[in-house]
Amino acid sequence: MSQARPTILKIGGSVITDKNTELGVQMEVITRIADELQEANPRNLIIVHGGGSFGHPVAQKHAIKEGFKEEQQIIGFAETHHVMTVLNGIFMDALIWRGIPAVSITPSSCAMTRNGRIQCFEDSPIKQLLKMGFIPVLYGDAVFDTELGFTILSGDQLVSFLAMRFNAKNILIGVDVDGLYNADPKDNPEAKMFDRLTLEELKKVKGFFGGSSACDVTGGMANKISELIPAVEQGIPALVFNATKPKYIYKVLKGDKVKGTLIEKE
Amino acid sequence: MSQARPTILKIGGSVITDKNTELGVQMEVITRIADELQEANPRNLIIVHGGGSFGHPVAQKHAIKEGFKEEQQIIGFAETHHVMTVLNGIFMDALIWRGIPAVSITPSSCAMTRNGRIQCFEDSPIKQLLKMGFIPVLYGDAVFDTELGFTILSGDQLVSFLAMRFNAKNILIGVDVDGLYNADPKDNPEAKMFDRLTLEELKKVKGFFGGSSACDVTGGMANKISELIPAVEQGIPALVFNATKPKYIYKVLKGDKVKGTLIEKE
Repeated sequence: MSQARPTILKIGGSVITDKNTELGVQMEVITRIADELQEANPRNLIIVHGGGSFGHPVAQKHAIKEGFKEEQQIIGFAETHHVMTVLNGIFMDALIWRGIPAVSITPSSCAMTRNGRIQCFEDSPIKQLLKMGFIPVLYGDAVFDTELGFTILSGDQLVSFLAMRFNAKNILIGVDVDGLYNADPKDNPEAKMFDRLTLEELKKVKGFFGGSSACDVTGGMANKISELIPAVEQGIPALVFNATKPKYIYKVLKGDKVKGTLIEKE
Repeated sequence: MSQARPTILKIGGSVITDKNTELGVQMEVITRIADELQEANPRNLIIVHGGGSFGHPVAQKHAIKEGFKEEQQIIGFAETHHVMTVLNGIFMDALIWRGIPAVSITPSSCAMTRNGRIQCFEDSPIKQLLKMGFIPVLYGDAVFDTELGFTILSGDQLVSFLAMRFNAKNILIGVDVDGLYNADPKDNPEAKMFDRLTLEELKKVKGFFGGSSACDVTGGMANKISELIPAVEQGIPALVFNATKPKYIYKVLKGDKVKGTLIEKE
């Protein structure tokens, strides 16, 4: 039992799902990630995964992020939360049957937002999990909002919140690109990747990260990076790396160097 | 949006799972119950389901209820929680795709016990769900305990707790027998069912309800009934009825009379 500062590992929805197919899961990626987690056998780790082709299309269809406006959204909210629990269940299945002591924490059961920002968060189960050597696993979710009725709580907001609340050692952001570029590497072969950015540098180039996957109700890379800033300002370094590459998750958990963009306070 | 007193419906694990097969689900029963819920279209309802062949065998194998004693239990706790989320997912699936606005609430994410009794419970998501017309769905779960490390929170304790916390109108306990008997009807053809019991009468005959299904870590019928007592004492009537019988759930939700045992304060 240890109470060292935890690492927060984000696994992007675009990594574990197929964004081109509604409810399309990248099972071979999930299997590989579970193998790597088993091999790395990390302690003091909190995992947060995204929604990808599960949460985003349903949330978008019913405008869940915008809050409660009409009766028909009610079933849309229920569906959004449900498909996220299904994705989480698939991910947890891969972990549990490998003997990884992972326990899912349902954001909508323990958190409420106010105008989209976390307002209250019951963190005692997570504290207890970490103390006992479990790996808490959270995810972007449809949650209740004191002003909007409901909204979407992105995995990225959760990552930053948890990093600050638990005074994390570091944040590891696994995405489907190698790091942060000065242009979109999917469109522009001249795009250059940053190995390291200070907060000051990050704020200057942030505009370039606007390009995102086809469907991401939580705002894509630009939002992902904005969410990180308060945690980095608090002195928690964040590494953006490519989690679709074999062994990268294993290596970052072991503290080995991988290609990626390290964001530090200064 | 209504804030009337809710009804708490318990659906026993023995109703929706096959207690003779580990991880055996009674899919046709779940489908029928979902049809009945859709037809009844209830408002102000909280559902709690049990663990049956999902939660109980895993919890028993790893002695989760007894609390944390050795390292090997860690994966056992993770497994117990996981199989419960799987059962809940199957149940939710049947509800959601029928357009029933049901939202799962994960007990281990929002509640902690102290020596097995609920000590803290973050109830704001459930309040918001009821206010907006959703049906919260909870279940017996492996939860964290401030004294024991972890334990099992039975669906029955949850039912009574929620009934009192939300000042429920009534409690409906769906099990796989017709009601409470003066002897076990599965062994004794002479056993007589009670149509109605006052608390005073109940306390006198409670000893008879000890006989339970093959594997129930939460203590079977005797414990189910003990858990109900504080809520009934508070004036909330509880009906024990057979949820394996077609249309019974529909009828009890509509307020129609069905065979069963009604427990009232006096």
